[in-house]
Amino acid sequence: MWCVLSGGVGGARFIDGLTSVLPPDEITVIGNTGDDIEFFGLHICPDIDIVLYTILGVVDEEKGWGLKGDTFKAESMLKALGEDQWFHLGDGDLALSLYRTFRLGQGLSLTEVTREIASRLGAGVKILPATDHRIETRVITASGEDIHFEEYFVKRQCRDTVKAIRFDTPGCAVRATATGEVVEAIRSSEGVILAPSNPFVSIGCILAVEPIRDLLRRKDNGPVVAISPIVGGEAIKGPAARMLAELGMEPSALAVAQLYEDFLDGFVMDLKDETLKEPVERLGIRCLLTDTIMRSRDARAALARATLEFARCL
Amino acid sequence: MWCVLSGGVGGARFIDGLTSVLPPDEITVIGNTGDDIEFFGLHICPDIDIVLYTILGVVDEEKGWGLKGDTFKAESMLKALGEDQWFHLGDGDLALSLYRTFRLGQGLSLTEVTREIASRLGAGVKILPATDHRIETRVITASGEDIHFEEYFVKRQCRDTVKAIRFDTPGCAVRATATGEVVEAIRSSEGVILAPSNPFVSIGCILAVEPIRDLLRRKDNGPVVAISPIVGGEAIKGPAARMLAELGMEPSALAVAQLYEDFLDGFVMDLKDETLKEPVERLGIRCLLTDTIMRSRDARAALARATLEFARCL
Repeated sequence: MWCVLSGGVGGARFIDGLTSVLPPDEITVIGNTGDDIEFFGLHICPDIDIVLYTILGVVDEEKGWGLKGDTFKAESMLKALGEDQWFHLGDGDLALSLYRTFRLGQGLSLTEVTREIASRLGAGVKILPATDHRIETRVITASGEDIHFEEYFVKRQCRDTVKAIRFDTPGCAVRATATGEVVEAIRSSEGVILAPSNPFVSIGCILAVEPIRDLLRRKDNGPVVAISPIVGGEAIKGPAARMLAELGMEPSALAVAQLYEDFLDGFVMDLKDETLKEPVERLGIRCLLTDTIMRSRDARAALARATLEFARCL
Repeated sequence: MWCVLSGGVGGARFIDGLTSVLPPDEITVIGNTGDDIEFFGLHICPDIDIVLYTILGVVDEEKGWGLKGDTFKAESMLKALGEDQWFHLGDGDLALSLYRTFRLGQGLSLTEVTREIASRLGAGVKILPATDHRIETRVITASGEDIHFEEYFVKRQCRDTVKAIRFDTPGCAVRATATGEVVEAIRSSEGVILAPSNPFVSIGCILAVEPIRDLLRRKDNGPVVAISPIVGGEAIKGPAARMLAELGMEPSALAVAQLYEDFLDGFVMDLKDETLKEPVERLGIRCLLTDTIMRSRDARAALARATLEFARCL
């Protein structure tokens, strides 16, 4: 079994590719919950739902999130009620969160509800939230504001300059800890893959959950491989490259490898970044150069296959 | 100002007619909350929403409930999750209840949320739930089952024989009491109209809320007039006629008048029921014979105008 640490769109597409290469029950996704958000009392899990919809083949591919062909009548009603929301949710999408919230209210953990939802919708891949504790990715802007990641990402369209990222555990005095399922999944996996997701806000949030980073550092676990979300100095999607620059790093695949340096065994970079192979290998990290841009479902599968073959040789 | 006690479809159409005859701010609806139901944690108010949608002109006229042109993506998702519900809710309709539930959770009373919703959607008519207490209309079937009215009405399509109706106040040791707003509205009204709604489960539930029936009995309040929902021994909509028969009464407008005998000043019956005028008047209740079937918006207005003129002469 292989573990994949994943954020939203990029990670979801990689996992979708992986399902063409591995039987689904040999894939365990450890999902980011740092951008979970409340919407009129509903518990929304943007990243986990993107993964779920993508592997089920029901995602709106154009937007990358939400359900293909979903309607927005709920949003229209809320707008009519004077609630013009910046966070958008289709009607079917909303119902999934209604169901999740209802079951959480009945006492199920997020892990249990996520398993139930995935199983009922027919996802063969196991999807585990990194933690059942509440954890919130906060963006500190250059002007000193401290805002929810989704506010930075969706409402303000990444227009702010990022000064720092922090992970909050609202209403909780301790740091968020991983569930037993997550610890067991990492321990018993053949290896761990960090999907091409944002290293700060998606993978970063998962790594902030104790003891995930420590588990990856242990050499008795299998290989740990990451796929760079940065290609030729640009993020394939989202604000990762800008964040690197704003946080004082070079916006490059090398900087991503450096962020994971303490535990990474292998790094998958795009062919465009051939010149970075040597500097990455100088960090003691083996490199694979391949086409990492997932333009089609075939490309997703090819990247997953190459990554897996590479990881198995480490 | 006139008060209208109302259930769902029939009452809503009558109130819609009344808005052509009276300025909306001279109409206060006292709505039935006995068929309120929980749906995945959402607080649904079927009757109040039907009234609201009808006066706003956005109701699905064919079904009588829900929003015109609403979609059902949420229902599809819940079905995909294995939750095949007998209670149907369109996406926009669901969002209204999501908003209501969210605001109730923030500490607003049902009266306050209902006022807020009506005002935000632009309803000029004041809509008051009869009570802020939870009250539930229960149907006792011939086989001894004790079920929620909506289960009898929607799920079982009124197939059971009704042995009794009772009003439960779940989780509450006392009887449901009317809000101050309701008491004040009845006291300060020019008169009270009982809409052509089911006398047992809609009007009956409102009358079960203390001290509404007592207020109607007081002769120092204005006239109290009811419109018969039974025409020629048949209910225009819903199970009222069957209920009368199953509860051992004659399914006729006369039986409805008898149910209200202790406080009724005037009774509006359809022309088809001319022969019942004398028996009703023998109860000390004045009668108006008119066309009570609201086939068109003009017919709604005509019935409202006739009822109001009649009530004003009492």
